[in-house]
Amino acid sequence: HCLNPFWPRIFYFLSLSLLGFGVLKALKPRTDSFRPRNLDLFFTSVSSITVSSMSTVEMEAFSDSQLVVITVLMFLGGEVFTSMAALFLRNLKPKLRIFGGKVGNHSLDGGVDGGIPITNPKPETLREEDDQSIKFLSFVVLGYLVAVNLIGVTVVSLYLAIVPSAGSILKKKGLKLLTFSVFTVVSSFTNCGFVPTNENMVVFRKNPGLLLIIIPQILLGNTLFPPCLRFSIWVLGKLGKKVGGNSDYLSKNAGVIGYLHLLPSRRSWCLVATVVGFLVAPVVLFLAMEWNSESLNGMNSFEKIVGVVFQSVNARHAGETIVDISTVSAAILVLATVCMYLPPYATFLFLKDEKEEKNLQKKKERMRKKGVSNIAYLSIFVLLVCITEREKITEDPLNFNVLNIIIEVVSAYGNVGFTMGYSCKRRSIGGANCEDKWYGFVGWWSDGGKTILIAVMFFGRLKNFNMTWRFP
Amino acid sequence: HCLNPFWPRIFYFLSLSLLGFGVLKALKPRTDSFRPRNLDLFFTSVSSITVSSMSTVEMEAFSDSQLVVITVLMFLGGEVFTSMAALFLRNLKPKLRIFGGKVGNHSLDGGVDGGIPITNPKPETLREEDDQSIKFLSFVVLGYLVAVNLIGVTVVSLYLAIVPSAGSILKKKGLKLLTFSVFTVVSSFTNCGFVPTNENMVVFRKNPGLLLIIIPQILLGNTLFPPCLRFSIWVLGKLGKKVGGNSDYLSKNAGVIGYLHLLPSRRSWCLVATVVGFLVAPVVLFLAMEWNSESLNGMNSFEKIVGVVFQSVNARHAGETIVDISTVSAAILVLATVCMYLPPYATFLFLKDEKEEKNLQKKKERMRKKGVSNIAYLSIFVLLVCITEREKITEDPLNFNVLNIIIEVVSAYGNVGFTMGYSCKRRSIGGANCEDKWYGFVGWWSDGGKTILIAVMFFGRLKNFNMTWRFP
Ligand SMILES: [K+]
Ligand SMILES: [K+]
Repeated sequence: HCLNPFWPRIFYFLSLSLLGFGVLKALKPRTDSFRPRNLDLFFTSVSSITVSSMSTVEMEAFSDSQLVVITVLMFLGGEVFTSMAALFLRNLKPKLRIFGGKVGNHSLDGGVDGGIPITNPKPETLREEDDQSIKFLSFVVLGYLVAVNLIGVTVVSLYLAIVPSAGSILKKKGLKLLTFSVFTVVSSFTNCGFVPTNENMVVFRKNPGLLLIIIPQILLGNTLFPPCLRFSIWVLGKLGKKVGGNSDYLSKNAGVIGYLHLLPSRRSWCLVATVVGFLVAPVVLFLAMEWNSESLNGMNSFEKIVGVVFQSVNARHAGETIVDISTVSAAILVLATVCMYLPPYATFLFLKDEKEEKNLQKKKERMRKKGVSNIAYLSIFVLLVCITEREKITEDPLNFNVLNIIIEVVSAYGNVGFTMGYSCKRRSIGGANCEDKWYGFVGWWSDGGKTILIAVMFFGRLKNFNMTWRFP
Repeated sequence: HCLNPFWPRIFYFLSLSLLGFGVLKALKPRTDSFRPRNLDLFFTSVSSITVSSMSTVEMEAFSDSQLVVITVLMFLGGEVFTSMAALFLRNLKPKLRIFGGKVGNHSLDGGVDGGIPITNPKPETLREEDDQSIKFLSFVVLGYLVAVNLIGVTVVSLYLAIVPSAGSILKKKGLKLLTFSVFTVVSSFTNCGFVPTNENMVVFRKNPGLLLIIIPQILLGNTLFPPCLRFSIWVLGKLGKKVGGNSDYLSKNAGVIGYLHLLPSRRSWCLVATVVGFLVAPVVLFLAMEWNSESLNGMNSFEKIVGVVFQSVNARHAGETIVDISTVSAAILVLATVCMYLPPYATFLFLKDEKEEKNLQKKKERMRKKGVSNIAYLSIFVLLVCITEREKITEDPLNFNVLNIIIEVVSAYGNVGFTMGYSCKRRSIGGANCEDKWYGFVGWWSDGGKTILIAVMFFGRLKNFNMTWRFP
């Protein structure tokens, strides 16, 4: 019943990142003068396939064809696509059961409600209905994926064609409109967070329209995917009588199907409430602390509000940004770090349900164990980076401070992509040879540090999507 | 069966800290020129009773009589004393059962092995044996407490009287030898970590003898208390036939008695191994990173090794120090933060035992829940401090950086007392009116920040002493 066993997943991500590296390496970069190093290209490939958007190379160094490759990598690495692929595989080989044979035990994201089925009185009949419904489900996910992305690309393209202030930026930077639209929409839907511009979305901070188009893309592809999927299934059930049975079956057996992203009804509502809560909290804090600050300089009230909402949505987990993260208050950084750490489907359970309760209990033990050990692993990763970068920490304490390292590691673990960056101004000594770059803080680390962060990104991409707390 | 319910404990600590504040306030400080503010005196009282040794006042500001008061507060706040007091209370009122009535359910440190008794075939006979053994146990703990402290005071006094380099420091500072010895030994045994000198143990860094006397005091009063208690009971059982029965009963029913600090045999061995592990790791890292560094300047090899062992022992959780914490490498700080966060009886379970396993399972769920929420609470506390100190964070980024705040909060939560301090040299602007002080970083915080840290210290003192992981 488990769709996502560990080894096939790590094989998938690892082989695609190697393939992506090879293709990126073969293609010409934008200019002849600058060729990224191999480690940096591999880092970019890993960052794309794990939808992290950590960067060690400026985005405008990549040529149009390289941007297309990155788009493909992001698309193939996104959770909606990979989970759909696993569903189709299960359809194609129902007798081989290559994935079905192993029941949820060692699954890294066999979530709260997936995995262990409740009492199953007629296994054979249920199995048949099961297969039928899974086929239906996989096509619903496919439709959802295609529809949301197509609509996104269309609307973004229209916006860029119509609004001159946004379109002119692309012209100035020599970016093709279609490449930019597809890249940005795929990046937003998969929650990767790469944008073809060096400055990420900072150049579009005064285009609230564009931000408002992208915000739903980010939510539909990540934290709000389960409730929207449920909603789609429900709507389809109402529309056609032929699929009504499947729709009903899926709605009622959400926990049994073994598709992590199909959550029971109560859980879905709780998830929506939790997502709203973790959106409102940083928005309020951000507005309270930064309304008149340097970081939101030059924006009018409407742009500020849209920008702050955009920024907060991006903390989970797209990582696109309209401000220089290093300029915001420490309190916001701490809250953002918590938001980045939380897995997408982290949920406060406000509603009680006996049956669900029982189902949760079993999985909970295992998940909590992982919750605690994840923090232990993160501490070890931070410690290792502190060792590899020890000299820079001493020489350049304002850039290489432990908070910045923690944020970079948590950002990589959460596959977010926020970074404190590196500033030559903050450098205390030897600023002569220093030139500010548009890539992330990790771009300034040693090869050892970069390699550790690659491992953290993989580790993060394979983490559990779920986490639940009883509330209050 | 539960000795430490929540409300009596919080009442105990709160009333004693208020009383301590009143007495400290009534007594004259050392000089007439400086009178600590009320909040700072209350902070000191809380810091003593919660055995934290966070400080907002320089220690040498306190007069001899005030030092005696602080000694009494530390003694009354130490875990060995409070748990012994609860045992005696249980003896005195076996029929009232004021504490016994409530079974482990809401106990903050009803640990892994305390609380829920295993199957109990003859409740009445067991009850009688139980009471008898508890009486015996409470006298063993009393003897242990008195013996370790008396021996400690004697040896430290002798050392100070004999070794001129150490004795002369006291004379120069105008500290009485007996006050210093009692204060330091009580402080070390309770793992409070206050020392009557401003510089804490830094002035004694070249007295490895003194450090070697204090190290066992710290271990015997905290992480190694359970195995040493077991050992004492075993030895007493061998000595007298009269107590042999009680000794046997206690050894075999360690998990049933409900005394948190009496652990089953396997668990004790695992605890010893874990303590050694979390001692060796920071020692190795510290020696590797700091052998030739500024922080250990002027010490010979033997002094360095003893000093580093002393420093590592103090991370759990005494918080005495022989180096300026702010000068050590980031990697060590990260590891020290982890060590500070770990509760005293955190244990990797290397050995398996069916019976124990089952007993653990039940408690584990609850503890993990607390483990996760503790980190959530700590994040909130850090966030709140970032808000109260937001102006200083902007104006004085090198002193008020988030890592220093995190270390201060984790140190208060772990009741450790390590601090990054505050340095006028690190201050970037307006250093004119700045004067370096010997108190902790928190001494430079606003009243709001100090109040938050008081709450964190209470919260930390009431935390669970246990935490276990299955290994590997
Ligand atoms: K991302
Ligand atoms: K302490």
